[in-house]
Amino acid sequence: MILLLTDFGLAGPYVGQMKTVLAAAAPGVPVIDLMHDAPAFRPGPAGQLLAALLAAAPAPAVWLCVVDPGVGTDRRPLAIRCGEHWLVGPDNGLFAPVLRGAAAWRAWAIGWRPDWLSASFHGRDLFAPVAARLACGAEATDPAIAGVPVGADRLVMPPAEPAQVIYVDGFGNAMTGLRAADLSEGAVLAADGRPVPRARTFGAVPAGAAFWYENSLGLAEIAVNQGSAAATLGLDIGAPVAIMVH
Amino acid sequence: MILLLTDFGLAGPYVGQMKTVLAAAAPGVPVIDLMHDAPAFRPGPAGQLLAALLAAAPAPAVWLCVVDPGVGTDRRPLAIRCGEHWLVGPDNGLFAPVLRGAAAWRAWAIGWRPDWLSASFHGRDLFAPVAARLACGAEATDPAIAGVPVGADRLVMPPAEPAQVIYVDGFGNAMTGLRAADLSEGAVLAADGRPVPRARTFGAVPAGAAFWYENSLGLAEIAVNQGSAAATLGLDIGAPVAIMVH
Amino acid sequence: MILLLTDFGLAGPYVGQMKTVLAAAAPGVPVIDLMHDAPAFRPGPAGQLLAALLAAAPAPAVWLCVVDPGVGTDRRPLAIRCGEHWLVGPDNGLFAPVLRGAAAWRAWAIGWRPDWLSASFHGRDLFAPVAARLACGAEATDPAIAGVPVGADRLVMPPAEPAQVIYVDGFGNAMTGLRAADLSEGAVLAADGRPVPRARTFGAVPAGAAFWYENSLGLAEIAVNQGSAAATLGLDIGAPVAIMVH
Repeated sequence: MILLLTDFGLAGPYVGQMKTVLAAAAPGVPVIDLMHDAPAFRPGPAGQLLAALLAAAPAPAVWLCVVDPGVGTDRRPLAIRCGEHWLVGPDNGLFAPVLRGAAAWRAWAIGWRPDWLSASFHGRDLFAPVAARLACGAEATDPAIAGVPVGADRLVMPPAEPAQVIYVDGFGNAMTGLRAADLSEGAVLAADGRPVPRARTFGAVPAGAAFWYENSLGLAEIAVNQGSAAATLGLDIGAPVAIMVH
Repeated sequence: MILLLTDFGLAGPYVGQMKTVLAAAAPGVPVIDLMHDAPAFRPGPAGQLLAALLAAAPAPAVWLCVVDPGVGTDRRPLAIRCGEHWLVGPDNGLFAPVLRGAAAWRAWAIGWRPDWLSASFHGRDLFAPVAARLACGAEATDPAIAGVPVGADRLVMPPAEPAQVIYVDGFGNAMTGLRAADLSEGAVLAADGRPVPRARTFGAVPAGAAFWYENSLGLAEIAVNQGSAAATLGLDIGAPVAIMVH
Repeated sequence: MILLLTDFGLAGPYVGQMKTVLAAAAPGVPVIDLMHDAPAFRPGPAGQLLAALLAAAPAPAVWLCVVDPGVGTDRRPLAIRCGEHWLVGPDNGLFAPVLRGAAAWRAWAIGWRPDWLSASFHGRDLFAPVAARLACGAEATDPAIAGVPVGADRLVMPPAEPAQVIYVDGFGNAMTGLRAADLSEGAVLAADGRPVPRARTFGAVPAGAAFWYENSLGLAEIAVNQGSAAATLGLDIGAPVAIMVH
C-alpha cells in the first residue's frame, strides 16, 4: 500500500492529481490519505509526526511524503529503504527522525526525471511515479528510478529538534514529539512557561486546567479540559515544550 | 464494502490510520468515507442520520460507525447483523434508530481486545480490525471477534428521540430526522417557534422565506431561499422541530 | 478509473453516497476524488478547470463531473466520448471548453432514468450509475444508459469565456484560464486594473508584489509574494483578467 503524508491540504485538485498518477502507474495498489495537513513547510515537526505514525503502522508501506519548501530548487529527491518500508520524498530533514530511530536503512538519490517536471508540483511529477514503481516491486536502481546510493553523511540530517508541538487538532489539543513511555507517571511538562501535569483523562482535572496525556500515537499531548490548549497556552506548531519533572 | 461514518472530521491522521488498518486486514475490500462530520459526540442525531443513509444504501455493507463520547469507559463494543448489513461501533444508542426500524437483527458484544488498546482511539484499535474481519466473511463468534450474544433488552436503546435537526450543511440548510413520506403535501413544521411550510424548490418561495422540502435522503430539510436556515431560525444539531400541520 | 469533479464540498454524506453507488455498480474500478471544490454553481470557470485537468491526465478515464445549478430542471444529462475519455454530467456548458479543444467527440443524451430520482442529487441517482456502466465497458446505447446521439448544434455550447479567475487556493493564489504557453516571457496581465508581470518564482519579486507564473497545470496563476493575491487584488472566481502585453 501507498500512504500519503503531505502539507497540501484537501482543497484543490492537488491530492487528486497525485492519486490519479498513482492509480495509472500502480494499478491495484491501495492508496491511503494518511494526512494532508502535516505541518506546512516544516520538515522538522512533520518528520517527528511521520516517525510516530510509522512506528504505529500495521504493515509495511511505501510512504509518499511531501513537505517540501524547497520544491523547484536543487534539493535532492530521495528513495529510502527503511526496514520493510520505503520512504519517498525530499532530502530536507523530513526523514531524519525516522532514520535516527531505525536499525538499518539505505538511501538513494532519485536520478530519473519525467519528460515534463513542473516547478511546483514534484509530488505529482516526480515522487508519485517513483512511489508507484517501488510499490510495484521495482528496485531503486531500476532505470525509471535511477537511484544513486547516498551515504548518511551526505543526507540532510539536522540534529534532533528539541521537544516541541508537532500538531494541533481542531479542538486545540497540542501533540508534542515526546514519547509518553519516556516520561514518568509524575512527569510535568512546561509550555508557555506554565507547568502542565499528567492526567489520564479530561475528566480528571478541573475545567480550564491544562494537562498532558498519552495520545493514541503514544505521544504526550497537551490539552485543556473544556478548552483549547492552543489558545490558552499560545501553542502552535513548533512551540517549545520543556520537561520540568521527568 | 466497508462504509465509514464518524465524527472525527477530516483533519489529522485519524481517518487515515483507521483506513490503513482496514487495508492491511481486509485487502481488496473497498473502503468508503461516507461521512466524517456526523453530529459530534451526539449518538442520538447521528443514529437518525445513519438510519436514513442505511435505508438509501445501494448494497449490503459493513458500517463502521464511531460517534463515541464514551470511548475509554467500559461501554460495550458491538457487532450487529441487521438484514444483510453489519454494524460495528459503540453501544450508546447510535444504532437504536436503525434497529427500531429493522425486521430482524442480532447483536454481539465484541469480546476480542487488541494487544494494545489506546484510551482514545477504539475506532482504529478495536472497531476497524473487527469490521475488517466481518468484511472478509468472519462470523461474530470468530475468536478474533469473540462476540457474545446480547439481547435487545440489554442494549442501550433510548426511546425514539423527538423530531430534531440532525445535520446542518455549509449553506445552513437543516436536515431533520422526519421522513417526508410521513408528512402531507400541506404539512407545516415549526422551528424556533415559527411555521415552516412545504415547498418543492427554493424558487417557489420569496427570498428570505423559510420552507421545508424532501431532500435526497427522503428527509424533511429546512431551508431559507437565498439565506441560511441555521442562522435565520437559530438551528443547530439537536434543535427541536415540531409538526404544526401533519 | 473514474475521476470525480464536483462542487459538493467535502462536508456531509454526498460524496460518500456517490462513491457507494460507484463501488456497488463498478466493483474493482478505482474511484478518485479529483476535486470537490470546483467553482460552485459556475459551469463556465469549472469547465475551463476541467479542460486543464483533462489535458494533464496521465491516462484515459471516466470523468464524472457535477457542477449543476440546473439540477431538478429539464436540462439534459450527457455522456460524451472524447478521445479515450468519457465525460458524464449535465448539459450546461461545463464540457464546452474540453470539446472546443478536442479533435473528435460524440455526445449522447442519457435516456435512462432510475426508479427513484431525487430532485437535488442527480450525481448519485443518475450520473454515478451511468459513469459506473461506462467504466465497466458499456456502450452509450446500452439500455441502462439509453443514450440518444446529440449533435454539437444542440448542446449548450456558450462562446468561449473571456480570460478569468477559475480557482483560488487557500493561500489566495488565483488560477486563471490562460495557458502560459500562449503567453510570452514578457507578458503582462491586468487584474483589478493593475499590471501583473511574469516571474518565475515568489522569491523573484519584492514582498507584497503581484506577479504571475506558470502553475503545475500549465496555466497562468496570479500570486502576491508573502501575501494573498485574492485579497490584494480583490480576485474571486470569475474575476476578469486581461492581457496587457502579450
